[in-house]
Formats: sequence, C-alpha cells, structure tokens
Amino acid sequence: MKDELGVIGLGKMGSNVAKNLVGQGYRVVGYDVDEEAVGSAVDDADCEGAENVESLADALEPPRTVWMSVPHGEPVDETADALADALEEGDTVIDAGNSDFRRTRERAELLADEGVALLDAGCSGGPSGALEGLSIMIGGDADAYERVEPLFDDLSVEGGYEHFGPPGAGHYVKMVHNGVEYAMMQAIGEGFELLAEGEYEDIDLEDVARVWSNGSVVESRLTRLTRRAFARNPRLEGVKGHVPDSGEGRWTVETAIENDVPATGIAQSLFARYRSRVGDEGTFADKVLAVLRHEFGGHDVETEDG
Amino acid sequence: MKDELGVIGLGKMGSNVAKNLVGQGYRVVGYDVDEEAVGSAVDDADCEGAENVESLADALEPPRTVWMSVPHGEPVDETADALADALEEGDTVIDAGNSDFRRTRERAELLADEGVALLDAGCSGGPSGALEGLSIMIGGDADAYERVEPLFDDLSVEGGYEHFGPPGAGHYVKMVHNGVEYAMMQAIGEGFELLAEGEYEDIDLEDVARVWSNGSVVESRLTRLTRRAFARNPRLEGVKGHVPDSGEGRWTVETAIENDVPATGIAQSLFARYRSRVGDEGTFADKVLAVLRHEFGGHDVETEDG
Amino acid sequence: MKDELGVIGLGKMGSNVAKNLVGQGYRVVGYDVDEEAVGSAVDDADCEGAENVESLADALEPPRTVWMSVPHGEPVDETADALADALEEGDTVIDAGNSDFRRTRERAELLADEGVALLDAGCSGGPSGALEGLSIMIGGDADAYERVEPLFDDLSVEGGYEHFGPPGAGHYVKMVHNGVEYAMMQAIGEGFELLAEGEYEDIDLEDVARVWSNGSVVESRLTRLTRRAFARNPRLEGVKGHVPDSGEGRWTVETAIENDVPATGIAQSLFARYRSRVGDEGTFADKVLAVLRHEFGGHDVETEDG
Amino acid sequence: MKDELGVIGLGKMGSNVAKNLVGQGYRVVGYDVDEEAVGSAVDDADCEGAENVESLADALEPPRTVWMSVPHGEPVDETADALADALEEGDTVIDAGNSDFRRTRERAELLADEGVALLDAGCSGGPSGALEGLSIMIGGDADAYERVEPLFDDLSVEGGYEHFGPPGAGHYVKMVHNGVEYAMMQAIGEGFELLAEGEYEDIDLEDVARVWSNGSVVESRLTRLTRRAFARNPRLEGVKGHVPDSGEGRWTVETAIENDVPATGIAQSLFARYRSRVGDEGTFADKVLAVLRHEFGGHDVETEDG
Repeated sequence: MKDELGVIGLGKMGSNVAKNLVGQGYRVVGYDVDEEAVGSAVDDADCEGAENVESLADALEPPRTVWMSVPHGEPVDETADALADALEEGDTVIDAGNSDFRRTRERAELLADEGVALLDAGCSGGPSGALEGLSIMIGGDADAYERVEPLFDDLSVEGGYEHFGPPGAGHYVKMVHNGVEYAMMQAIGEGFELLAEGEYEDIDLEDVARVWSNGSVVESRLTRLTRRAFARNPRLEGVKGHVPDSGEGRWTVETAIENDVPATGIAQSLFARYRSRVGDEGTFADKVLAVLRHEFGGHDVETEDG
Repeated sequence: MKDELGVIGLGKMGSNVAKNLVGQGYRVVGYDVDEEAVGSAVDDADCEGAENVESLADALEPPRTVWMSVPHGEPVDETADALADALEEGDTVIDAGNSDFRRTRERAELLADEGVALLDAGCSGGPSGALEGLSIMIGGDADAYERVEPLFDDLSVEGGYEHFGPPGAGHYVKMVHNGVEYAMMQAIGEGFELLAEGEYEDIDLEDVARVWSNGSVVESRLTRLTRRAFARNPRLEGVKGHVPDSGEGRWTVETAIENDVPATGIAQSLFARYRSRVGDEGTFADKVLAVLRHEFGGHDVETEDG
Repeated sequence: MKDELGVIGLGKMGSNVAKNLVGQGYRVVGYDVDEEAVGSAVDDADCEGAENVESLADALEPPRTVWMSVPHGEPVDETADALADALEEGDTVIDAGNSDFRRTRERAELLADEGVALLDAGCSGGPSGALEGLSIMIGGDADAYERVEPLFDDLSVEGGYEHFGPPGAGHYVKMVHNGVEYAMMQAIGEGFELLAEGEYEDIDLEDVARVWSNGSVVESRLTRLTRRAFARNPRLEGVKGHVPDSGEGRWTVETAIENDVPATGIAQSLFARYRSRVGDEGTFADKVLAVLRHEFGGHDVETEDG
Repeated sequence: MKDELGVIGLGKMGSNVAKNLVGQGYRVVGYDVDEEAVGSAVDDADCEGAENVESLADALEPPRTVWMSVPHGEPVDETADALADALEEGDTVIDAGNSDFRRTRERAELLADEGVALLDAGCSGGPSGALEGLSIMIGGDADAYERVEPLFDDLSVEGGYEHFGPPGAGHYVKMVHNGVEYAMMQAIGEGFELLAEGEYEDIDLEDVARVWSNGSVVESRLTRLTRRAFARNPRLEGVKGHVPDSGEGRWTVETAIENDVPATGIAQSLFARYRSRVGDEGTFADKVLAVLRHEFGGHDVETEDG
C-alpha cells in the first residue's frame, strides 16, 4: 500500500491515529461530522482535512484505504453507506471501532457487492495506544489484509496485530477481549475491596498494586493502571463507583448464550457493572473499576459532586 | 543483616532461593526433612547442608535469619516449633510459604514469646521467580523487617516487595493475590473457550494470546503464559481440564464471607475449579486453567492417558 | 365465547388440553402435522379431527378460537401464517407455546392486519396441568381476551390465570417464570449436593425433601417433585446429569442484558446447565435437575446406559 | 415422654411454641433472661414462669425435656452450660435455634459427658409456624430422639419433621435449607425486577405472584408470600432494599468450600445480600427480598424514613 490514508472520525482515537501516522511520514486526509474536530486534527495531527466523505475519497489515490474510528451502530452504518457510494472497486475500508461482529459480517457483504473490502480491526490500548502503539485484532478479506498489512504494522506495538479470519473475526476477538477485560477488572476490584475493607486496616493499596505489578503472577497492565489510580487517590475518596459498560461486554455474554459456552464469570462482571449504577455510591470494588476505566480509556470518573 | 541465611525446605522454591542467594555471595545453610533434597541442594545450589533444625541454627551466627519454604499447615507448625526451641532472642524466622494468615498471627505470637520474630512473606513468581526475582508481600514486626529488608531486596524484582503491616499482613495480601489470580485465570479461560468453541472455527489461539500480550488492556503475565501454553499445544489436545486449588483461594472466599465483602467473581472462579474436577473431561476453559497452572507453577497437567 | 375450540398441535400439551375441555363439554376440533397424532387425539380425547388448518377453520363457527400448542419458532410461524389465511376478522388465535415474546409482538401485528387477534398464553404446569389445571400468563388485545376469558378459566387452577398486558406480555411473564424456575432448581440442586456429599454421609434425601415440603419456607412444588424423584431413586444412581435448556432461560438472560437488570443468579443457573452437558457425568446437583425436569415435564432422563 | 416441657428463650419463637403446646394440654415452664418476656409468656401462653435455669429444672420431673429458642453463639453456650449443671442424667435438651452445626457437635459432646442428650432441631416456618405447625429437622442421639419424638409430632405440620442423623445433622439440614432459601429468594427477586423494570411497564406484580402461586412450577410458599407483599405495596415504594443475612447462609458457603461442593448460586445469593447493604437504596430485587423476609419472619423492613 501507499503511505496514504483517509481517516474518518477524528475523536480521541482517530485523531491520534492520524497524528501517529503523519509522524511516520504518511499522508493523511481526515474527516469528521463535527467540523471543529477536523480543524483540531488538521492543527494537531498535521493532516489534511476533508469536507465530506466524497471529497475525502477524491483526495486519495486508488486503491484507497480508509480508516473509520466511528461509534458503533448507526454512525458506522451511515459512514459505511457513504463510503460504498464514494469508493471504487479495489478500495479498502477499515472499521477500527467496537462494532458488533454480527453487523460487521453484514456490512462486509454490502461493501463487497460494490467491490470494496471491509476489514474489521478491533483496537485495544486506548488513545495513548493510538499514538504509541496499539494491539489490533483483524478480520476480513485475506487479499485486502495483505495489501494493508504494513499499516497495521505501523500502528501496533511489536507483535501486536494479527489477521484472525473472515469478516467479523477481528471484532469478535476484540469483543471477547473486552469480556475478559471486564472479568479481570472485576477480579482486581474484588481483591482491592478485600484489602481495603477486610482484615487489616492500613494496607497501602498503591504499594500492593506496585508489588503485584513487579514479578507476581497477576502482573499486568491493569495492575499497573491500578497503581497509578491509587497514586492519585489512595482510598478513592469522592469516587462514585458507577461503572458504565459499552456494548462489547453485553455481546460477549449474548454470544456465550448462543454458543453454549458457560461464561459465568464474564456474565457476573457485566452484571456487577449494572448493579454498580443503582443507588448513590457503589462498593469499593466498583470504585476501583471506575477509576481504572479512567486510567486506560480517558473515561470520566463520576464523583460525588456530580 | 549479614549475608547469611538458613533455608528450611529445599523443594523447588527453597532450593532456588538458596541457589539465587549463593550466587549473590550469601552463605546459605540448608535443611530439609528429606535427606536427598539436602544433598541435591548442596550439589546444585552450592550451599551448606544441615542434619536438622538444631544444627542449622548452630551453623548460623546470631542474630540469625531462617527462611522457611515449607508446605502450609502442619509442616510449618512443626518447623516453627523446632525453631522456637533452636533459636534465640533476636533471631528472625521468615515463613515464605502460603500459610493461612490467621494461623500466621497465632504462630507469630508463640514465637514472639521466645523473643523470635516471625515475618510472613508471601511469594509470587514460582520456582523461576525464586531464581530470577520474586514478588514478595511481607507482614510482621517492623524492626525485624527493617533488619532483614536487604534480603527481600536481593530476592525480589525491582519494586517487587513491601512490608504491609503486622503479622499475617503479608500472607493476607498474598492470599488475596491468589484469589485475584483465580478470577483472572477464569476470565482468560472463558475468553479462550469463546474463541475455540464460539462463532469462528479457525482462530489461532496462540496468535490471540500473543496480540493480547502486546499493547492490549488485558496484557499480562497470564496472557504471556497462555501464549506459551498454546505454542506447546494449539488446541489443548489430551488435556484433562481438572483444575486443582490450593488453600488460598478458599481462604479468600472465607475471608470475604467474614468481612462482608461481596466477592462473587472470586467465589465463582473457585467453584469453577471444584466443578472442573467432576467427570472425565472439563470444559475448554478448564483445560486453559490446567495448562496455565503448569506454565507458571511447574504443576503437572493431567492428561487423558493418566 | 361458545364452548367450541380448535386445537392445533396434539402433542402432550395440546392433546391433554383437548381431552380436558371435551370432558368439560366443549366441542374440540384438533389438527396436527402428524396424522397419527390426530388419530390418537380423536381416540383418546374424544375430539374431532381435521386434515389441515383450513378444514379446521371450516369446522368451527365464527367467531372462532384456535389454540396452538406448537413448538416455538418456525412451527409457530408456519401455523400462524396458515391461520392468517384460513381465519376471518373477529377470530382469535391463542399461542399457548413458549414463544419468544419479541416474535409474538411481530406475529400479533401481522395477524391484526387480517383482523385476527393473537393472544399469547404462557402455560406452566406441564402435561398433567393441561389435564387438571394450568397456570396461564396471558398477553394481547384486551377485547379478544375478554371474549375468550372463560376458556382460560376452564383450563386453569383457581386463581391461576391473568391478562398481563399487550401482545407478548404473557410470553414475557412466562419467560421470566422459567428463568426463576431455573434458578430455583439450581438452588435445590446445590442444596441436595451439600446434603449428599457434604458433612454427613447418610442423610435420607427423600426425607429431607418431604420435611422441606411440609411447613418450611422453601416448601414448593419443586421440593415436592424432588421428593418424588428421590423416592424413585434415593441416590440418583445411573443418572447422567446432563441438563438441557429450552429457549426461555436464554431469552431471560438476554432480556436482562438489554434492560440493565443484573440477573446474576439466573445467568449462573443457565450456564450451570451448559456446563452440565460437558463431560460424561455431571455433579450431584446436575443430576437433581435432570430428574426434576423429568418429574414436572415428562422429559426423558439420560442414563449412563444411553 | 410426659406432656411437660421447659422452654428457655421466650421471644417470638419460644413463646409461640409454649402457647401452642399449652393449647395442646402440655404443662410448660418458661424462662428467659429478660424478666418481662417471662411475664408476657405467662400471660399470653398461659405457661408457668421460672426465675432461672435451675428453678426451671427443679420445676420439671425427670427425665426432663428442655427446649431452647435462644440466639445462636454465646447465648446458646451460656444456656447449655447452665443446663449442664442443672440437669441430670437422662434429661434431654433441644437446641431449636439456628446454631452452627459444628458447635452443636461440640456442645453435644460436652452435655453427653454429663449424661444429658442434646438434640438439635432446626425449625423453619417462623413465629406463625411455631403456633400452627413447623418444619423441624432433627439431629442427635437416637434414643433421646425416640423418647421425645411425640413433641416434634405435636409441633410440626403433617409430615414436617424427621431425625437425620448424629449430633449436628439437624442443624446441618436446616443450614442447607436456609442456603437454598437464599438462592430461591434471589431467583424470585431477580424475576420480579425483570417484570418491574424490563420490557413491559404496567405488569401487575401481585397478579403475577398470584398466578405463579396457582398451578405453576415455581408455586411455593415464597411466591405466596411475595403476593402478600405486593398486595401491601404494589411497587415496594419506600422500601430500602437492605437485606440482612443471618449466620446460616454464610455457613452454607463455608461448608461448600470445605466439602468441595460448587455452590455458586448460593454463594451469589449471599453476596448479593452483602452488596444490597452498600449505598442508599438497593435494586428492585433487593427490595423484594427485604419485604419477603418481613413476610415470613416478622423481620422489620427498613424504609427510607429510617
């Protein structure tokens, strides 16, 4: 592929992808439904801006590659529809969002009818990963993948991408990844609640998260982020403990139901999030999850002040 | 402290601790109820051997430090009793095994009556960690800890040890650590079952574990070990899926019950292990857990051949 | 309404409904895709037989009432389509099967376009209830309900039917009922496993089920059925413990996911059934569920002999 | 046995037992640490009062039978100690409270040393059951049981008592009973949350509880109590949803842990109660549990007014 890319959706993820690639010498043309976002990206990422999907397509030379970092559901549908019109046979669209793999399969068929390949690329690592290196789980047409592979190489950390199968396989692996993430976070949340409200009163939680992050079997990005969260707020004072969930945890459990897989732990962690949002406060575990989400995703933390 | 240590219990953990410290210039005197283990350690770790607890104590200069890597329960009780007789005021015993923190509290009092300090040092990292650097969670008398701290520094990875409070606090933090580990393993097991037996048939599980280990939010020692396990056996063929549990997962749930902490996820992961041992086979998730335990602990994997 | 009814689907449920109503003086015309089933019902229930949906419709005087006891999914779709053609404005169809309430809503709209009302009537009580009195949960058009209400009165036990709202409401309440049933059965299963394999070896399980069925807080139809099961097989010897699930447990959890309801217990009981079907044997709890299903539903029990 | 009984502990349970038996022609001598309780019982139950354990013993003719309805733990210990002194060889003590079966075993040995038999009699049915008929689960010495059996017959509903084995067996069966009760209540709570906050807005919950109580597979005392609760408060307005737990749910899970029984559902229901007590409000399911406890046990319901 040429070092040229269209990026649609210039929020935290898309704009950082643009910035990262421009820094690596790519020519990037960006578009967002929000005009201001385009302006910011042009300024910050040093990319070119487009006024709409069509002009973005015109600004790229075929065979084109267009990266979508767009909220799942209708926004992806609308963008994919517009791209189906604007692109030509041989072009490739990458859905880098958290789409439902079942819809991805359908969209891939629709685009294939126009000769356009849809690759689904589930990305983990958050906005900072978009800048410094992501973990990317990819599905879709093998030929398109081969052509675009250098892009994935440029955007991921060493060893951090792979093509897992036909359309939807990438979003599927990413969906399961998030289900696992929910349950791992729940594990950590419960553990720190046992430390904060259990048998010993004065255990330093940041120290625990540090020791667990160095040499232990539970050593992980999540324990390191937990450490950072406790460094900011040692007892999570003022944190509300309302833990949102995005679609992927839900789809994981639905998929487990449909495929006869007993995913009791993942289901429990999803429902613990639902439960956390009832009432005013949440458990200590809920608070750990709330601040952890903030650490890795830049999600806002609700505080008692509102 | 002087660079001198007694080590009681020369199994996989103790003998590697001895070897590691001898390599760092320590003088180590080792003892084990199994005479052969003493011989092996003398040969392999290049330490001195003792015939019994008393002669081990005699071979060390006061104030002595004795490290126990002994199975929890009666073996620790017996060793601690023998040490209570053999040691003197000012000496320090380190229980580096996975003892129940409630019994550690009692033992610390008994030894304190003899003027001997008991430090509890929960160690994570397995035999390879004992050689290359552990994660150590420590409880017990603050003065004794201060005197012995250089030893913990020498045995742990950078940032990988801390003193968490009075007697039992170290074993308590380690116990919770293992509870978290159970639930994190369960999360990974369920996830890989969804990948192996879900919507897509040919997902390469080693590749998934690799991508998840590079740049993703679930990146962890456990995902890296999972990768290694799938490298050996891509579909876990012939693995039985019977997952043992040691005491610490059980104590974690008991402690949660006693302290009004809703540890539903950890309890579920413990009971999933119980369930795995009924019947002939186990789920794919169970098999993942079985091979993971092998990877990090050197535990044997049951196979269908027996 | 007149004491006249068409019954489509003459399996265990439909044929007993026919028999029950004929016994109460109804004129019943029955039809089944399986010709033999029609013959048996004519013999056993003393109803009239029809050769197809159309002739069944012809044999009834308008406004007609047709009861469907047909497997959910395609069979209901096909029957409803045939009825849409064969019936007239003012007629009423009752879906007495375990249909997904979401599809019931759609079907009700399709039939309403033809002027035909669809009432959804979730029935609990099994084949014996169909003969002696059911518990019936009803949704759909209020006017149609009013016209047909005497039928529900004739088919249910005292106090055992109600109209809960618009189309789908009846199947919805029945679906939740089954979700609750799964979790209650799981509770009983776990309890009896604790009795059979816990601290005491010789507790008579039939006696326990009897005492629990007389005066205790858990007294219930399920404890009475449990007693009957243990009377047949005191230690459930030879029972395989593979527990099937029908659609309703799954839909309950899916609905919980979609409506932000933390149904952790029901989800756990569904997944325990999935788990029970892996491997050769099952836990004692699984075996209790397997025999309980047999007791209330006439479902077959898998035994080790196959 | 003679129709004569000492009753120690004249709270809701003990005083109703006394009243019930006096009504059946027993001579009952009552004692309580609270003098007023003795006065009330003498007035209300028409029994005799005693000033202390010793005078109660003196007022009975050997071989004596003494019924304890005393809170578990220390109160039972103290009463049992006093009875050990006051009674003679051949007398029988019945612990009708919810004692931990493990302590019951120890107490039975202590009393046996004095020649006094301890029968453990777990009672279900609450204060109203004490008056009208209980479900009684009995353990302890077989000879003592035989002598006292007519009393159990007089106090239980038809078919509602049994001797299950050696000391502790009765409390064990009752403990498991309560674990099952927790999980059944949780099932019902989750179900009604799905009805109250799910797909349909105006389902009449009392009607649901009524229909489920008549002819359905989940028909049970708990569904009937649920109906009564919704009759009082159709949407549980003002109910706090803080659900207490007594010791037996905890012991059930501990026993499951110790006996390798995967009691995931019961554990989940216990932890859901813990969770309910965090924060201001609780889920709808929690509120159902809170009012259900009130219905069967006469437990107070916390309301938002305090």
